[in-house]
Amino acid sequence: MTTYQPTREDRFSFGLWTVGWQGVDVFGPASRAPLDPVEATERLADLGAAAVTFHDDDLVPDDATRAATLERFGKALAATGLGVEMVTTNLFGHPVFKEGAFTANNREVRRLALAKAVRNVDLAAELGAETFVLWGGREGAEHGAGKNVRSALDRYAESLDLLCGHIREQGYSLRLALEPKPNEPRGDILLPTIGHAIAFINELEHADMVGVNPETGHEEMAGLNFAQGITQAMWHGKLFHVDLNGQHGPRFDQDLRFGAGNLRGAFWTVDALEGGGTGAAYDGYRHFDFKPPRVEAEDGVWESARACMRNYLILRERARAFRADPDVAAALEAAEVAVLDRPTLGPGESLADLGAETHDLEALGARSVGLEALDQLAMEHLLGVR
Amino acid sequence: MTTYQPTREDRFSFGLWTVGWQGVDVFGPASRAPLDPVEATERLADLGAAAVTFHDDDLVPDDATRAATLERFGKALAATGLGVEMVTTNLFGHPVFKEGAFTANNREVRRLALAKAVRNVDLAAELGAETFVLWGGREGAEHGAGKNVRSALDRYAESLDLLCGHIREQGYSLRLALEPKPNEPRGDILLPTIGHAIAFINELEHADMVGVNPETGHEEMAGLNFAQGITQAMWHGKLFHVDLNGQHGPRFDQDLRFGAGNLRGAFWTVDALEGGGTGAAYDGYRHFDFKPPRVEAEDGVWESARACMRNYLILRERARAFRADPDVAAALEAAEVAVLDRPTLGPGESLADLGAETHDLEALGARSVGLEALDQLAMEHLLGVR
Amino acid sequence: MTTYQPTREDRFSFGLWTVGWQGVDVFGPASRAPLDPVEATERLADLGAAAVTFHDDDLVPDDATRAATLERFGKALAATGLGVEMVTTNLFGHPVFKEGAFTANNREVRRLALAKAVRNVDLAAELGAETFVLWGGREGAEHGAGKNVRSALDRYAESLDLLCGHIREQGYSLRLALEPKPNEPRGDILLPTIGHAIAFINELEHADMVGVNPETGHEEMAGLNFAQGITQAMWHGKLFHVDLNGQHGPRFDQDLRFGAGNLRGAFWTVDALEGGGTGAAYDGYRHFDFKPPRVEAEDGVWESARACMRNYLILRERARAFRADPDVAAALEAAEVAVLDRPTLGPGESLADLGAETHDLEALGARSVGLEALDQLAMEHLLGVR
Amino acid sequence: MTTYQPTREDRFSFGLWTVGWQGVDVFGPASRAPLDPVEATERLADLGAAAVTFHDDDLVPDDATRAATLERFGKALAATGLGVEMVTTNLFGHPVFKEGAFTANNREVRRLALAKAVRNVDLAAELGAETFVLWGGREGAEHGAGKNVRSALDRYAESLDLLCGHIREQGYSLRLALEPKPNEPRGDILLPTIGHAIAFINELEHADMVGVNPETGHEEMAGLNFAQGITQAMWHGKLFHVDLNGQHGPRFDQDLRFGAGNLRGAFWTVDALEGGGTGAAYDGYRHFDFKPPRVEAEDGVWESARACMRNYLILRERARAFRADPDVAAALEAAEVAVLDRPTLGPGESLADLGAETHDLEALGARSVGLEALDQLAMEHLLGVR
Repeated sequence: MTTYQPTREDRFSFGLWTVGWQGVDVFGPASRAPLDPVEATERLADLGAAAVTFHDDDLVPDDATRAATLERFGKALAATGLGVEMVTTNLFGHPVFKEGAFTANNREVRRLALAKAVRNVDLAAELGAETFVLWGGREGAEHGAGKNVRSALDRYAESLDLLCGHIREQGYSLRLALEPKPNEPRGDILLPTIGHAIAFINELEHADMVGVNPETGHEEMAGLNFAQGITQAMWHGKLFHVDLNGQHGPRFDQDLRFGAGNLRGAFWTVDALEGGGTGAAYDGYRHFDFKPPRVEAEDGVWESARACMRNYLILRERARAFRADPDVAAALEAAEVAVLDRPTLGPGESLADLGAETHDLEALGARSVGLEALDQLAMEHLLGVR
Repeated sequence: MTTYQPTREDRFSFGLWTVGWQGVDVFGPASRAPLDPVEATERLADLGAAAVTFHDDDLVPDDATRAATLERFGKALAATGLGVEMVTTNLFGHPVFKEGAFTANNREVRRLALAKAVRNVDLAAELGAETFVLWGGREGAEHGAGKNVRSALDRYAESLDLLCGHIREQGYSLRLALEPKPNEPRGDILLPTIGHAIAFINELEHADMVGVNPETGHEEMAGLNFAQGITQAMWHGKLFHVDLNGQHGPRFDQDLRFGAGNLRGAFWTVDALEGGGTGAAYDGYRHFDFKPPRVEAEDGVWESARACMRNYLILRERARAFRADPDVAAALEAAEVAVLDRPTLGPGESLADLGAETHDLEALGARSVGLEALDQLAMEHLLGVR
Repeated sequence: MTTYQPTREDRFSFGLWTVGWQGVDVFGPASRAPLDPVEATERLADLGAAAVTFHDDDLVPDDATRAATLERFGKALAATGLGVEMVTTNLFGHPVFKEGAFTANNREVRRLALAKAVRNVDLAAELGAETFVLWGGREGAEHGAGKNVRSALDRYAESLDLLCGHIREQGYSLRLALEPKPNEPRGDILLPTIGHAIAFINELEHADMVGVNPETGHEEMAGLNFAQGITQAMWHGKLFHVDLNGQHGPRFDQDLRFGAGNLRGAFWTVDALEGGGTGAAYDGYRHFDFKPPRVEAEDGVWESARACMRNYLILRERARAFRADPDVAAALEAAEVAVLDRPTLGPGESLADLGAETHDLEALGARSVGLEALDQLAMEHLLGVR
Repeated sequence: MTTYQPTREDRFSFGLWTVGWQGVDVFGPASRAPLDPVEATERLADLGAAAVTFHDDDLVPDDATRAATLERFGKALAATGLGVEMVTTNLFGHPVFKEGAFTANNREVRRLALAKAVRNVDLAAELGAETFVLWGGREGAEHGAGKNVRSALDRYAESLDLLCGHIREQGYSLRLALEPKPNEPRGDILLPTIGHAIAFINELEHADMVGVNPETGHEEMAGLNFAQGITQAMWHGKLFHVDLNGQHGPRFDQDLRFGAGNLRGAFWTVDALEGGGTGAAYDGYRHFDFKPPRVEAEDGVWESARACMRNYLILRERARAFRADPDVAAALEAAEVAVLDRPTLGPGESLADLGAETHDLEALGARSVGLEALDQLAMEHLLGVR
């Protein structure tokens, strides 16, 4: 029987803030003690992760101890063999960012946000990260008039152009990834979905250096289909990073472990990342951005981290079996799925040719598509009954 | 007292299918008799609309009577002085499109969808429409494996490239506008939000000819802020058309009259369209795409149509008063709203300069933003108590 | 290997309107031909169902042919051995009910609704049904002032009291079950959730004769947990019937086949119905109220019906294995799940005794609950990897 | 012009925790300094409130200073003339309650929760409060198997029965009010809606002593109509208290100031509380349970508190004008709203009489209901254009 034991080749990574979340929420203080980043790194290595990621504030909240902290952390990385695949900066926690960071009305705040981002881009490069994620959790508003959205998008673009320019100048091998979210903690956050972020990126000076870091729950909070969203992102060549977790539709940001919440969605997410239906796989890290529920003690923290990877591996096995099943191949053919690869207009054809065609509308309208049968095959692979 | 009586200068337009909706839903048949498009046109003219719009199937469901119908309809337009500002084609009603139109797996269906679209682009040009809207209501899926989303986006792009090529060739002065919607009638629709549509458009051969036609309720079904969404669309230069109506958040597509549903959202929508906060107004038609509730008889149809325009005019008056109020100007200044227009980096400054700055984080974190005060001013203008 | 082939003992039942849905929605007409109720009955029998259910309008839309239809239908029942376990009446389709039925403002409408219900209660009794379901799909409003909710609840209660009185008088062995739904087709429907319906029932004259018929998707449209909801209903002794299907959270009513949509929710639903965690099982029919997607031809209709039952059986097997697993027993003990059965106050104890106790708050706050571990065990049983 | 200046007769009250919220959320620490309860009381008195309410932890977090704190607070009450109309107890903040309080699996936790509640019931009585609210924010689960919902409801009932018994024994004039919420901070909270809570209350030993304290945002998070919900609660005689605030549908709990969010909903809420459509007004305090957005400094705290009351008064004026308008009376008559007060069956009539009636279904189906016209009148009163 498969063990579903992750290896480095599976390229799983975790934010230090995930296992390190102490359980503070709007309705209560911490339920767990602080977690030492070095211990987190060691435990994640033991569980089979390949890399860690962090916000500056997770690792080096204090400038005075920065050098010592980084040295100690570097040793842990060396000892465990874990990499730092992504670094991000916390531009949402400190009250100074309460009204936004890159898009704060207050210019001094914007300046210090930008300086903070630059400092951490340098740190990311130093640690060999490939991706620098930016989540603009406070870029937004609760109020219609308090934010000029046009100007906000101008300023957002300005900051990203400056950061990209800096990366180019320094010769870093680092890409930026924007993380969309519709709301929470702000009433309405700018760039609320994968689509809005990619549209925005196209207006940047160095658009090629900037992609997205979609998170399962963030899209599902808007009722959107995550697998469909990341597939569109891949179609644009913009899926630079991914945050996997679980959510129960439109409500507060639950950050459940991967697989919990919308399990069928998780199956299709894995299938999409592995390129099951498209032939185009995502080649980056499978990054988990979840929160062990506040109810758990430390044992639950590690259990939930372990389960994120394990669920991915189970679902990957199931998705591969689905794609390899001859009955599925037959159902895909019955549903004409591959026919969609063929251009609608043939070589040498014109729109006038199309207009001249006649069709048996009644027969076409009544045709069998067999999609329930195909979907039930997927269900049964997911459930492991085939 | 203001009469809120619309004039042609207000540029209100209605789809014939709005007042013409007979009340068929999943749970019951028609509750109203069919409405003659000519009568609809005359009544809308009487109420103060400036233009009508239609799907081919609304006006000319039957090819045999097409010429006669168009002639009769043309006379009504001439008699009333109404224009046809937009035309769209129904690629979602007929069972033949049950699995999609431009992105149907079945190639024959795609071919007939494209031919239908071309035929109606020609009609739109003939009638002098400025915009051709495409709502892909059946482009999507209920099932993860039934649709290769990459190929679907390829085919979607192919169709739009062909349509744009045709428009260029024919020398029509016509732009395309895609209408996003997250779901219903399909489980998940492709290009589910304004953002996804604009991102997609950027990949098209004639991207400049294609924009979006966002609908209030469609974005609000995903919990998104409509005013923020159309402002981002305007920032991209992509707000080619707009569908105004009302909705109560994530649930079925309610298509309420404008103002009903999220009234505060409607206020900010009008403010955004009029350029209140940004100086950049939308200059197209204010198009209503609503459904008089099935419960209403014909009197309710006209009352709801009347109220769409009336509510727009009331809200426009209120939004203008808000923007003209010196107390609002003071509150905007207190909230530093206009400061966001200033680049974060000054002329001649570098990121290194920023990094060298020091800041009083505590004071900045505790600063007053006065956004509740500003928002309450907006509330009171909306309610007419100032 | 298990075959997951349903038998009569599994007590699966289907509404004739489920397989009979022709695909009419707000955006398009029928995509499938009408289905003969007799054929539906025969096919469902072949698939392994134990009973059928129907609205009057599904079976006998036409009074003129009523007797003949019933005779023919009775023969099909006899031939297949299927029962009619539930009957319901359509008080939402005909335009006459556009503003409500039992709670329509118009008194004549209320009278004819009540007469229709009585006629079909008689039919239900004649056919040996145990349950008469009432779904008040049009009982509600889009408008705040149009419906006096107090009076509406009075009239709703009046109708139910009269129906119960009639059943008592006639000596029928029939119970009523109200089906809650939050919205669609009306903007807001009265008795929107399981809770509202049970609260209401408690005010009825014959409260013991009336329970609820909750539907998976209806509760999930409000973001509610269905398993938790039906467990509360069972706690009240009010789960008289159940409608199983699938849904993707707050959006239009999808009526997916059972298992599709929220699969983890379906697992817990089956566990709740089978009494897995509580020892108190639901003993009625497992009734499917779904719609084969409009995209499907007739083959998809039967495939989706087959899959509803098959998925139930797979999930039942998994839920039973979960409950039988010694590791699960250990995890339940670690989580102190059974401790909740013990009263908080012991025999002979008083509140004063409690007040005198002291507690180690820190240790209690840090205690391990092991719920992620327990939930992961459930996940793995669901996925069939244990 | 009306000043919308609240007076004590308006009976507005505020939780100390509302203006006292420091802005801690999942993504960032406090943005505001702690607020002295005495200062809060004085400021709220100045603004026109009539009473305050609090959790034990808001006022007396520390047992050592309890007596002194209460004495000082009592003086502030005496000086300002404010009352304490409601007291509640915090059974959700401390990590000890992370898995629930009255329904925690751990029995010691349940015992200390109950002891805490009793202690604060005594305090409530001592301070002359009329209502004791219980919000079970941690009573629930993220996991299907971790909570036996039947036992949880048993234990919930046990606690309430014991509390009621204690109140009876002590002769307090105090009623309990349960506050429903669907989710957040727990994944699914027990008694998620007004309906579930009232259904549950009917099973209690002292059901007459227990009602509900619905909160605008909590119901709207489930997409439910708040005005309809509280009207059902009043119909049951169970609206013992109310929490007014603002929310934008299914998403995180926003706790906006009253009027913000769903403004039309707020209008109908005020109309319902004032008995506009039913003649049955709510006679308790208008209690605001909101959070000044984290972005605000202290000035925003008071501005938002002020605006809660002001918006209520504006909406009350508008609702009264709506109900007094002869055109509205005519529209109500056209919509037959008052006809719903008439029983469906007349005196002396039987169901058999009903069955014998014939109806012109076509005419009835086509009848005018005039609800859009009525709703537009309400809109225009709300907007102040009539």
